[in-house]
Amino acid sequence: MSERIWTAALLVIGDEILSGRTQDRNVAPVAAWLNLQGIRLGEVRMVPDDLDRIAEAVNVLRAGHDYLFTTGGIGPTHDDITVDAIARALGVAVVVHPKARALLESHYASRGGITEARLRMARVPEGAELIENRLSGAPGIRCGNIFILAGIPQVAALMLEALSGQLEGGRPMLSRTIGCWVPESEVADLLGQTERDHPGCQIGSYPFYKEGRAGANFVVRGVEAEAVAACLADLVARLDAAGYPVVAEGI
Amino acid sequence: MSERIWTAALLVIGDEILSGRTQDRNVAPVAAWLNLQGIRLGEVRMVPDDLDRIAEAVNVLRAGHDYLFTTGGIGPTHDDITVDAIARALGVAVVVHPKARALLESHYASRGGITEARLRMARVPEGAELIENRLSGAPGIRCGNIFILAGIPQVAALMLEALSGQLEGGRPMLSRTIGCWVPESEVADLLGQTERDHPGCQIGSYPFYKEGRAGANFVVRGVEAEAVAACLADLVARLDAAGYPVVAEGI
Repeated sequence: MSERIWTAALLVIGDEILSGRTQDRNVAPVAAWLNLQGIRLGEVRMVPDDLDRIAEAVNVLRAGHDYLFTTGGIGPTHDDITVDAIARALGVAVVVHPKARALLESHYASRGGITEARLRMARVPEGAELIENRLSGAPGIRCGNIFILAGIPQVAALMLEALSGQLEGGRPMLSRTIGCWVPESEVADLLGQTERDHPGCQIGSYPFYKEGRAGANFVVRGVEAEAVAACLADLVARLDAAGYPVVAEGI
Repeated sequence: MSERIWTAALLVIGDEILSGRTQDRNVAPVAAWLNLQGIRLGEVRMVPDDLDRIAEAVNVLRAGHDYLFTTGGIGPTHDDITVDAIARALGVAVVVHPKARALLESHYASRGGITEARLRMARVPEGAELIENRLSGAPGIRCGNIFILAGIPQVAALMLEALSGQLEGGRPMLSRTIGCWVPESEVADLLGQTERDHPGCQIGSYPFYKEGRAGANFVVRGVEAEAVAACLADLVARLDAAGYPVVAEGI
């Protein structure tokens, strides 16, 4: 009955994230995309632009998960050191990928031509394959189970699109959300009991304050569609019985 | 000449983050607040609602940094297990804090009264102090160098406010930003050379596409105000000389 669970880790690279200058906007889309592939995001780490720190995190995370994704640090400037750090972690050389060079030459033909700085974006850890995208000339990079994505969310999203359906995974994690105008503390026991009565399902409770009122969204997760539906129906019935009518699809 | 650098780690706790349901909105504000305290955010990890995973990350991160902050998992429901996980990591019992109980009793006096579920929010690792906030009845928790904050960003922000000026740190990291309508690859060498010519300063390059044009913001960081100003002035002069007029304060 037990089922192989595929997991991935995400490593977010960049001083701008840790300084607070830039709000990461890649974790949630990567997580949602992984769910569709039947892979769970098991862990995220965010580290600064530091070769050793990146390389260390890469080796820990790739050993602990089926897949490792990274975002950030693959541009043309001096602070873009992701490729060097991953090559160090893997113990391989950094080489210029001929196809990446051709892509960049073509992309920059009408934009002032190729330069040494732009060629930096053709550098890959030896043995890597490319993950193309149509927005930027610079491709993402695949090295075995490591996927090196751009930091700019629109570009990272296109790289994920190119990978859709390419990775082995298990069954997608399903989730169904309902909302309720109730302080979660009033239904805490009800939630816990409902979860215990439905093995294989988890219920998450996410409180909020809106329009001057306390409410919460409840998310039922699981891989069995029927089990998730049954747990959800039971939860709705129990909330109704307790005097809290449910808003379908959440608030 | 070498200066003690104070660092903190942030542990973001919650299945909702790793499922992609919820976009984290605490990393950037915590990072910015730490900078003001003279403390650098050195690392972020995000883990699911799993006792062992949380406890393991807590012990690694508190050993590697001067401070550890956590967000999430301190509400009244069954999936709120941060206090239990941190108590396990520290090898101490979970106890009800008398003042937290009093705060909750007072907060809920006009909201249906205290219940067993609500009392969960008065549970702390033995020996902990409270971090009060005026928005929610539930306080944050301080255990030595560990600071346990709420997951809801508005509440976490109030807890940080209560801690402002309380933590020992070094000099704040200063940063100055300028913007330029230039593809960063055209000035990559210029940026790297300028950074090398100004020891103690880092220059970050953050490209974007807006209004159909490529541009980049450049951030100069350092702890010496004069050095940062000198590096910034030099960078502006070099960009100007290269034909790229600078937009003050970034784009």
